[in-house]
Amino acid sequence: MYLYSNCLGTFVFNQNFKIREQILFSKEESLKNSDLLKQSKILDSEKKFLEKFKNIENLRETKDIKNLQKALYELRNYTKDFYNTNMYITKHKIRESVSYDLLIIQCINSIIEYNKVINLLVKRLREWYSYYFPEIDKNIEDNEAFVKLILKKTKKQLMQELKLKFSMGSDLNKKDTDAVFELANQVDFLIESKHRQELYLEDSMKKTCPNLTEIAGTLIGGKLIALAGSIKKLVLFPASTIQLLGAEKALFRHMRNKRCLPPKYGVLHEHKYIQQAPKKLHGKIARVLSDKISIAVKIDYFKGDFIGDKLRKEIEEKIKEMNK
Amino acid sequence: MYLYSNCLGTFVFNQNFKIREQILFSKEESLKNSDLLKQSKILDSEKKFLEKFKNIENLRETKDIKNLQKALYELRNYTKDFYNTNMYITKHKIRESVSYDLLIIQCINSIIEYNKVINLLVKRLREWYSYYFPEIDKNIEDNEAFVKLILKKTKKQLMQELKLKFSMGSDLNKKDTDAVFELANQVDFLIESKHRQELYLEDSMKKTCPNLTEIAGTLIGGKLIALAGSIKKLVLFPASTIQLLGAEKALFRHMRNKRCLPPKYGVLHEHKYIQQAPKKLHGKIARVLSDKISIAVKIDYFKGDFIGDKLRKEIEEKIKEMNK
Repeated sequence: MYLYSNCLGTFVFNQNFKIREQILFSKEESLKNSDLLKQSKILDSEKKFLEKFKNIENLRETKDIKNLQKALYELRNYTKDFYNTNMYITKHKIRESVSYDLLIIQCINSIIEYNKVINLLVKRLREWYSYYFPEIDKNIEDNEAFVKLILKKTKKQLMQELKLKFSMGSDLNKKDTDAVFELANQVDFLIESKHRQELYLEDSMKKTCPNLTEIAGTLIGGKLIALAGSIKKLVLFPASTIQLLGAEKALFRHMRNKRCLPPKYGVLHEHKYIQQAPKKLHGKIARVLSDKISIAVKIDYFKGDFIGDKLRKEIEEKIKEMNK
Repeated sequence: MYLYSNCLGTFVFNQNFKIREQILFSKEESLKNSDLLKQSKILDSEKKFLEKFKNIENLRETKDIKNLQKALYELRNYTKDFYNTNMYITKHKIRESVSYDLLIIQCINSIIEYNKVINLLVKRLREWYSYYFPEIDKNIEDNEAFVKLILKKTKKQLMQELKLKFSMGSDLNKKDTDAVFELANQVDFLIESKHRQELYLEDSMKKTCPNLTEIAGTLIGGKLIALAGSIKKLVLFPASTIQLLGAEKALFRHMRNKRCLPPKYGVLHEHKYIQQAPKKLHGKIARVLSDKISIAVKIDYFKGDFIGDKLRKEIEEKIKEMNK
């Protein structure tokens, strides 16, 4: 006799591969609560069978694949049920596969795209606004400050502030300036929205991986997760890979052509510790950082304690030593 | 004796190239009103001189360049004034150089960029929203409709409409969905803003070049002006060039490699007459269109009457004949 269980229920076959007894999951609900979704190997229903047929020795002899296939052939009447239940399980699994990693990756990617979009539109805005008042464009390099300023103050006020008697910009009609300010307002909305997304990202990062966030910061930490694909994949990377995440292009250029120097850092280059340090130390600091990030992300993944502050102090001390 | 005038005023030199008499523009204001800015060749002040020195024959003998240079050397005391006045004139000219063409070009380029930006962000939005409710993404192809729908209706309402009992999307926290809807709202703002810019463009196009707008439509007309650089340049192009504006890449590919076929149309391909026609007529219709556009834009540039409706009828008749 053979015992077989799948998502439909548990079946007992006799020697001729006819179904002798069966317990079907009555409803989708009971399936949901069953162990199948939790992927344990022996089901409750199976246990009941085993108790009932205790004395039959070859009950779990399902290792004989040829005979098993014959037995499964008996189940052909259940094809439709089998399809439906499998779909149900798959959908549930898809549903449960949405983890915080994925949301973080979407958010960091959207922030990167926000930046692209804002840069593109500000370029257009600067060109367009310059017909109206070109003197501002050169005075303010920061895009965000530029947009805020032209929205906050009129041309007259700005001319007084800059002590300009005469502007090279022409006095456009209200309709024409309205179109320019329409664009400026949009860019301003986008900037505000980006800030809100950054706050959300910081919040989720601190919840999901506090140690990583403490050392790498929200944006760089997020970018590392996005580049790796998930926190789990980031955990599996050695520190040297983390050091070069985001520098794939330079790395492959080096591998094709040995005359090109290998890269020393990828997205880590944006880190304040590297930005503040003299250029000759950049590579060394990147190595220390990626080392500690590799430790931090492992602690986060296995839900360890928060030791981010300790790790950060260690990094700072190492940098101090380098500077000596 | 020599007579010489520049932006500072008019000077009379004697045979030894010393200044004998001069009339300087007293103020920037008088300069602004003077003919200099209007680029006429003989100034009022010059006329006065000419009357005064009527009997002196060689008064305008400035063709002798060597002597003129010596005479101009006398003006070295005025260097600073000369610089300032020249700057003033240049700034004024820059100010007056802002024409409606330039504003139209900025506007059409900004609309093209709006489209790019909206496409980029909607892609991200679709991916992100699909964690929450993936069934909508495939059902609606149109980006604008997608954004409007997910903003208007909740997941529950949408599930009822689609008669779905179960969604593969996971039930995210309010904080997580808020971030998705933040992005959706931004995209919606951008779409609305784009529509307003299109209205402004239509308005300015109808004012500046009514005939072109009537035949080519706002967007294609605007793109033609942007590709040419200005209405004036578009006027100077032959119809065959207008036909291929926007197809430069394909044209140069053909010129490098004769095996590639030459393009038949550039931005004109978006025109409804071409879109509605069978494919084999596309090239012919593009030729008729560019022909009439070439006429229309010339009329617009020289401020002729509105004959857009007449030209359009001619095009429609020609297309009818082709279809026979």
